[in-house]
Amino acid sequence: MKRRKSAPGPRRGKTSGKKALWGAGFASGPGEALARLSISHPWDRRLAEVDLRGSLAHARGLQRSGLLTRAALARIESALRRIAGEIERGSFRFEDADEDIHLNVERRLIELAGDAGRRIHAGRSRNDQVALDLRLWTIAAIDRASEAARVLGTALLDRADEFLEANVVVAARTHLRGAQPVLLAHVFHAWVEMLLRDRGRLADARRRAAVSPLGSGACAGSTLPLDRKGVARELGLPSLSANSLDAVSDRDFAAEFESAAALAMAHLSRIAEDLILWTGEEYRLFLLSDATSTGSSMMPQKKNPDSLELTRGKAGRVFGNLMATLTVIKGLPLSYDRDLQETQQPLFETADALELSLAAVTEVVAGLRLRPENERAPIEPTTLATDVAEELVARGVPFRTAHETGYPPAEPETAMAGAPRHVM
Amino acid sequence: MKRRKSAPGPRRGKTSGKKALWGAGFASGPGEALARLSISHPWDRRLAEVDLRGSLAHARGLQRSGLLTRAALARIESALRRIAGEIERGSFRFEDADEDIHLNVERRLIELAGDAGRRIHAGRSRNDQVALDLRLWTIAAIDRASEAARVLGTALLDRADEFLEANVVVAARTHLRGAQPVLLAHVFHAWVEMLLRDRGRLADARRRAAVSPLGSGACAGSTLPLDRKGVARELGLPSLSANSLDAVSDRDFAAEFESAAALAMAHLSRIAEDLILWTGEEYRLFLLSDATSTGSSMMPQKKNPDSLELTRGKAGRVFGNLMATLTVIKGLPLSYDRDLQETQQPLFETADALELSLAAVTEVVAGLRLRPENERAPIEPTTLATDVAEELVARGVPFRTAHETGYPPAEPETAMAGAPRHVM
Amino acid sequence: MKRRKSAPGPRRGKTSGKKALWGAGFASGPGEALARLSISHPWDRRLAEVDLRGSLAHARGLQRSGLLTRAALARIESALRRIAGEIERGSFRFEDADEDIHLNVERRLIELAGDAGRRIHAGRSRNDQVALDLRLWTIAAIDRASEAARVLGTALLDRADEFLEANVVVAARTHLRGAQPVLLAHVFHAWVEMLLRDRGRLADARRRAAVSPLGSGACAGSTLPLDRKGVARELGLPSLSANSLDAVSDRDFAAEFESAAALAMAHLSRIAEDLILWTGEEYRLFLLSDATSTGSSMMPQKKNPDSLELTRGKAGRVFGNLMATLTVIKGLPLSYDRDLQETQQPLFETADALELSLAAVTEVVAGLRLRPENERAPIEPTTLATDVAEELVARGVPFRTAHETGYPPAEPETAMAGAPRHVM
Amino acid sequence: MKRRKSAPGPRRGKTSGKKALWGAGFASGPGEALARLSISHPWDRRLAEVDLRGSLAHARGLQRSGLLTRAALARIESALRRIAGEIERGSFRFEDADEDIHLNVERRLIELAGDAGRRIHAGRSRNDQVALDLRLWTIAAIDRASEAARVLGTALLDRADEFLEANVVVAARTHLRGAQPVLLAHVFHAWVEMLLRDRGRLADARRRAAVSPLGSGACAGSTLPLDRKGVARELGLPSLSANSLDAVSDRDFAAEFESAAALAMAHLSRIAEDLILWTGEEYRLFLLSDATSTGSSMMPQKKNPDSLELTRGKAGRVFGNLMATLTVIKGLPLSYDRDLQETQQPLFETADALELSLAAVTEVVAGLRLRPENERAPIEPTTLATDVAEELVARGVPFRTAHETGYPPAEPETAMAGAPRHVM
Repeated sequence: MKRRKSAPGPRRGKTSGKKALWGAGFASGPGEALARLSISHPWDRRLAEVDLRGSLAHARGLQRSGLLTRAALARIESALRRIAGEIERGSFRFEDADEDIHLNVERRLIELAGDAGRRIHAGRSRNDQVALDLRLWTIAAIDRASEAARVLGTALLDRADEFLEANVVVAARTHLRGAQPVLLAHVFHAWVEMLLRDRGRLADARRRAAVSPLGSGACAGSTLPLDRKGVARELGLPSLSANSLDAVSDRDFAAEFESAAALAMAHLSRIAEDLILWTGEEYRLFLLSDATSTGSSMMPQKKNPDSLELTRGKAGRVFGNLMATLTVIKGLPLSYDRDLQETQQPLFETADALELSLAAVTEVVAGLRLRPENERAPIEPTTLATDVAEELVARGVPFRTAHETGYPPAEPETAMAGAPRHVM
Repeated sequence: MKRRKSAPGPRRGKTSGKKALWGAGFASGPGEALARLSISHPWDRRLAEVDLRGSLAHARGLQRSGLLTRAALARIESALRRIAGEIERGSFRFEDADEDIHLNVERRLIELAGDAGRRIHAGRSRNDQVALDLRLWTIAAIDRASEAARVLGTALLDRADEFLEANVVVAARTHLRGAQPVLLAHVFHAWVEMLLRDRGRLADARRRAAVSPLGSGACAGSTLPLDRKGVARELGLPSLSANSLDAVSDRDFAAEFESAAALAMAHLSRIAEDLILWTGEEYRLFLLSDATSTGSSMMPQKKNPDSLELTRGKAGRVFGNLMATLTVIKGLPLSYDRDLQETQQPLFETADALELSLAAVTEVVAGLRLRPENERAPIEPTTLATDVAEELVARGVPFRTAHETGYPPAEPETAMAGAPRHVM
Repeated sequence: MKRRKSAPGPRRGKTSGKKALWGAGFASGPGEALARLSISHPWDRRLAEVDLRGSLAHARGLQRSGLLTRAALARIESALRRIAGEIERGSFRFEDADEDIHLNVERRLIELAGDAGRRIHAGRSRNDQVALDLRLWTIAAIDRASEAARVLGTALLDRADEFLEANVVVAARTHLRGAQPVLLAHVFHAWVEMLLRDRGRLADARRRAAVSPLGSGACAGSTLPLDRKGVARELGLPSLSANSLDAVSDRDFAAEFESAAALAMAHLSRIAEDLILWTGEEYRLFLLSDATSTGSSMMPQKKNPDSLELTRGKAGRVFGNLMATLTVIKGLPLSYDRDLQETQQPLFETADALELSLAAVTEVVAGLRLRPENERAPIEPTTLATDVAEELVARGVPFRTAHETGYPPAEPETAMAGAPRHVM
Repeated sequence: MKRRKSAPGPRRGKTSGKKALWGAGFASGPGEALARLSISHPWDRRLAEVDLRGSLAHARGLQRSGLLTRAALARIESALRRIAGEIERGSFRFEDADEDIHLNVERRLIELAGDAGRRIHAGRSRNDQVALDLRLWTIAAIDRASEAARVLGTALLDRADEFLEANVVVAARTHLRGAQPVLLAHVFHAWVEMLLRDRGRLADARRRAAVSPLGSGACAGSTLPLDRKGVARELGLPSLSANSLDAVSDRDFAAEFESAAALAMAHLSRIAEDLILWTGEEYRLFLLSDATSTGSSMMPQKKNPDSLELTRGKAGRVFGNLMATLTVIKGLPLSYDRDLQETQQPLFETADALELSLAAVTEVVAGLRLRPENERAPIEPTTLATDVAEELVARGVPFRTAHETGYPPAEPETAMAGAPRHVM
C-alpha cells in the first residue's frame, strides 16, 4: 500500500463544536466520522409520534409516583403537545448535535418546559426509551400490515366468488406444467391460505412485541419507585419486561416481525410471478388494468406489470433486511450496544415495503379482467390422466398399474362432464 | 470464450438405465447431471421414520374408506414394519434410480407386499406425501429443540440460584464498558428471558406446522373418499390443510422454524461471546471446565473455548439456511415445483445445529466455575454514578442536573452498603 | 378471514392525474399503490450528476453521428448545465409524476431546450440510460472506498511504525486466548493485509463495471448509427457491452461491488471488535480518544466506543444489501425487469456505509493512545511454550514429543531475551 | 420456565475416553456435546487429497532445511502414499477422537512412520495446515467450475450458431412482455456474456486464493528456518502470505469464491427460469429432451423440467452459504478462532452446487429442440414500434414526438422486410 501521505487524526466535524447532552467530562465533541455515524434523526424522526406518546406516559407515571409535581407534569404535557404540532407541521428544528429524535425532543422539551423538562429523564434512559419507541412503532406497523393483508385477502375472496359463479376452470400447474383442471377460485383460495398464515405470524409477533421495557434504565433498572404497570397500561402494553439487561438489548420483536414479513413478501412475490405470467401474451388468462401497468418510453405497445415486478423486487429487500437485523443481533455482548442503531432502518424499510406491496397486489387483483376467451378455459385432455387413474382405482385396479396403463387417458371428456372439480 | 471442443449432449448416468416409477412414456432415463441432481436419498433417508409412520396411517385410512381390504392392509403393515427394521439395522438397500426415500420405500413395499403395496399410492402423491413427512419431521425437531432450550434454561436458573446465594455482584456492561453493578444472577436471568421467547416462537411454529396435507394429491386433491380427519388424528395432527394447491407447495413451516432457530442461535452466539470473554484471562470471571475446552497442538498452555466458538459459528450457518429457504420459496410458481427439494437440507442442518448448540452451551454453563477471586467481584466505584444521580433525583434535583454534577460520584461505597441490587 | 368490506378497486393517487412520458395509449394514470411504488426520485436523485454527464456525452455522440445539429447540441449543453446548477442549489423541482431522476431531468430539458430536448432520447432508452448511470455511480463509489481504504491502511502503517520503534510486544491470541508474543505492529500489519485484499477486489469490480451499455436501447439495441466508442471514451469507460439483452439487465457490477464491500465490512467489524476489547477496562491496551467515544445520559463515567460499534452494525446492513441484490437478480427473466429498481438503494446504502465506516475506523486508529502501562505489555510466560517447543525441535526432538514435555516451559525469559519476534 | 429437573453437568461422550493429540495437561476428554461439535472428519475428509499433498511438500521443505533427514523423509513419503491408497480404497480408519482429517492422517502417519511421523508437525500448526488445505481445495474447485462454465458457454455458442444459420427470430422481452424482435442467437449470446463475467470473477478469486500460508504456525509464525518459497512452488502457489496473524484466520478466498458462485448461480437460475417458460405449453418455443425432464407419479402426461428447477433451487442454497460464511468471518477476533470450522461445509456445498448446476444446464441446452412451428417464430407486429420510431428519428422527427405518434406502427411488415435484426 503506497503511503502517499499520512492519515489525518480525528477531525472535528460541523456538529462537534456543540457538546451532546451526555458530554460532561469530555474534552471535545465527536470527530467528523463519529458525528456522521451518530446522526440518526433524518430517519428515526419517524419515531416522533411514539416517542412523544411514551414520554407522556412516563411523565404521568412519574407524577403518580411523586417524582414530579402536578404543575411540572402540566408544563411537560403542554410542551409535548406543542412539539407534536411542530413536528407535524414540519417546523420542528432538528439539530445534528442532538443526534436522534429522542435527544432532539428532550432538548426542545427543556427549552419549552424548563426545569420540569429536565425531570422527565428520571428513571428512564435512552436505552429503555428507544426500546419502548421501537416496540410501539412495530406494533403499529404490524397492525397496518395485518389490515392490508386482510384487505388483499378480501379482494382475493371477492374475485374467487366471481370466478366460482362463472365456473371458470384452469389448468393447475406443477413444475409450471399443466397438471389437473381446477376451478380458478381454487387458485385464489390458495393465496388466501398463505395470507392467513402470514396474519397468524404477525399476530404472534405482535403479542411478543407488546411488552413495556420502561423501568429498565440504561441496563440495570432504576432505584426509583416507578409505576411500571400503570405506564404500560396507558400505552396499551399488556406485559412488562422481566429483566433489564435483556430488555434494553432485545430486538427480537424487530427480527420476528421481519421474519413474518419475509415470508409474506415471498408469498406476494409468488403471486406477482404467477400474475405476471397469467397476464402475459402467452398464458392469456387475464388482462391487467391500465392503472396497474405502465408503458415504455421506447415501445409504445407495451403494458408492463410494474406493480408486480416491484413487489417481487421488494421481497429481496425484505430478505436482506432480515439478514441485516439477525447479523447485528448476533454480534452483541450484553447488554445495550450501539450496533442496535443499525436495526432501525431495516425495520422501517420492511414495514413500508410490506404495506405497500400488499396494497399494490390488492390494486392489481381488484383490477384484473379475465380475457374473454377464458370465461371457459381450454383444458388439455391429458391433464385429466389422474382422474382417470383414480377412477380405475375406485374400480379396484392398483394405483401403480392404473398409472402405467392410464396413458393416454380414455374418454377424458367424460371425466369433465360432471360439475367442475373443486375437491378440497 | 474459447471453444476448444463442443459441449457434449446429455450423457446417460449410471442410474439412467433403470426407469423410475414415473417413467411410463419416456424414451430414456435421466441424463447424468439430472440423475445426480435428483438423488436425495443420501440425506432424505432421515425422513424414513416419519415416512413409514405416514404411510401406515394413510394405508389404515384407505382400509377404513374401503379402498384397501383388511388383508391388503395387514400385508402392508407387516412390510412397513420390516422396512423399518431394515433401515434401523442399516440393511435396507437404497437404489439411486429410486431417487429419494419415498420411492425407495415404495419399491421395497411392492417387493414385500406385492399387489397390496401397489395400492398404497391411491389418493396420495409424492407431493402431499413429502409435505406430510417434512411437517412430521419438523414437529419432532421443534420438540427436541424446545426441550433442549428448557434444559439450558434450567441450567442457567440453577447456576443463578448459586450465584444469588453467594451474593455475587458483577459490573453490568453497556457498549462493553462497565456500567452499573448487578447481581451475576441477573445476567443469567437475562439469558433465560431470551430462551423463553425462543420457546414461544418454537411453540407457535409447531402449531402452524401441525397440519395434515394428505389428500392434496399432486396439487388438485383427490376424487377418492379419503378419511382425512382420521389419518390426521392418528398422526397427532390437529388440523387439515384447506387448499390443495397451497398444501403441496407450502414450506412456511420450515422457514418459520428456521426463523425461530435463527433468533435462538443469535442468542446462543451472544451467550457464547460473553462467556468467551468472561472465561478469558482478562475478564477473569469464570473458568471453563476441561470437558468444555480444548488444547492446542502447538501451545500446550491453552484452554480454548471451542464449544462456544463452534456455537457462534453455527449461528452463521443457520442464518444462511434461512436465507436459502426464503430464496427458494420466493421463486416458486404455483403449485409444487422441484426447487422445493432444496429446502430439505437447510431444514435438517438447522435442526441439528440448534439442538447441538443448545446442548453445548448447557454443557459449558453446567461446567463453569467462578474464579476464586470473583466470589466478590471487584466493582469499580465509577459504575455507581447512576445510583448516586438517582439518589439526588429522589431528593428533588432534576435528572439532567444531577447527571452533570454527579461525576465523580461521592461516596460510592455508601451506595453499595445496602443489599445487592437486583432491581427488576 | 373476515370480510368486513370488499376490497377497493384501484384508486387514483395524487400523481395519477398526470400522464407519464410513456403514457400514450393508456386510458388512465397509475393507481395509488403503483404510483407510490414507482416514485424513486427521492433517492435516485443521487444519480443526477452521472445522469447529466451521461446525457451530455450521448448528445455529443448524436451530434457526431449527424442525428443532432450543432445548434441543438448547444441548446442541450446549456440546458444540462443549467439543470446541474438547479440541482446543486436545491431549486430543481422534482415531480412525482415523472417518477425518477431520468424523467424529471428529461422533462426539464424539454422545458429549457424545447425541440432539441426532445431529440436526446434518440438511440437511448431509460433501460440503457439507467444502466449507464449506475455504472458511473458505482465506479465513483469504488474510487471513494478504495481511497478511504488506502487512508486507513496508511494510518495503520503509521501507528505500526510507532509501536515498532517503541518495541511494543503483545500476546497474539487464538480462540481469544493468549497464544504467543508478537510485536503490536504485527497486529496492525495483519489488518493492512485485509485492506490490501479489499482494494484488490474493489479494483477488479471497477474493471468489470467500467463498460458502456449505451446503444443497447430498451433491450435490442438501436438501428441508428451511434458513436458508441466515442461516447464511452468521453465517459472514461474503456469497453463496450457486447450484448444488448444482457446489458440492460446486468447488475453484476452492483452485486460484485457489494460482495467486495461485504468482505471489507467484515474486516472492519473484526477490527472494531478487537479495538472495543483492547480499549476496554479489562484488556487495558489502548485508550480511545474523546473524539471517537461517547458518553451516556445516565452514567457519566462511561466512554463508549460508539464509532466501532456502529461500524460493526453497518456490516450487518451491508450483508443484507448483498442478499437483497442477489435475490432480485436471481428472479429476473430476460431482459430488463422493473424489479431492478430495487437494486439501487442497497447499492447506495452500501457505498455510504463502507466509506463512512472506513473513515470512522481511521479516526479511531489515529486517535488511539497506548495506556502508559503497556509501553511494555505484560507477556504471560506460558504463552512462550511454542517457542520452547520449537527450540527443542531445532535440537532434534520430534515435535509431538517436545509438545508433550514442553509444559510448563522452562526458562521462558531466555526465549524473550533476544530481539522482539516479528517472524514473518 | 418450569424446572422439571436440574440440567446435567457435562457428560463424557463416547469419544471422550481417548485424549486428543493436544490433550497434555487436561484432566479429562471433551464433553459429549463438544465431542459431537468437534468431529468434522465425516465431511472434511474431502480435504484428504490436498492435505496429503500439503504434508508431502512441507516434509520435503523440512528436509531441505535440515530439519528432517533423507531417511525420515523417505519414511514419511512412503507412509503418505500408503495413506492416500487407504483413503482411496475406503480402508482408512477414521477415529472420532481425532476429530478431523488432519489429526486422523497425522495419527496414521505416526503409526506408519514412527518417529519420523512425529517430526512432520515441526514448523506447522493445524491452523496454517488447514488454511493451506482449504486454499488448495478452493483452487481446484474454481478450476472445475471455470471449466464447467466454459463447457456451458460452448454449448450455448454452438446452439446459437444453429439458430443463426436457421435465422430464427424471437420476441425479446422486457417486463416479460414482447418488446422487439431479435435473433434467438442473440438471447443465447446474452447468457454467454454472463458466463464470461463469471469466469472473470472466478479467475480473480483464484489469483487471491493461490497464496501459501505455510510458515504462519498457529498464529505467530515459526522460528525454524523453513523453506517457504520452495514449498509454495512445489504446491503451485505463486505467492506467500505476508502476515501470520492474518494468514491463519483469513477465509476471504472462500467468501470470494462463494460470491462469484452466487452471481453465477443467479445467472443459471435466470437461464433456468427462461427455459422453463420457453419449453412450456404456453411459450411453445422449445421441447426439453426426455433425458432432462421427468415424469409424475400421478400424472403420466407430464414432462417436468426438474433439472432447471433444481438449478433454480440450488441458487438459494448458494446464497445462503455466502451469508453463512460472511457471518462467521464477521464475528472473529484476531487471529484463528474455531468458528472457522463452520466455513468448510458452505464452501464444499457451494462448489458442488455450482459445478453440478453448470453441468445440468449444459445438459438441458444441448438437448433442447426447437418446436417445429418455431423455425420461424411468430413476431407480433406491435413489437416493431421502436423500429418505426427510430426510422422517423432518422428522418428528423424528435424521438418523443415519434414515440407519441408511433402507435400503432404503420407498416411493421416493411421494417421486417430486411435481414433479421441482430444489432449489437
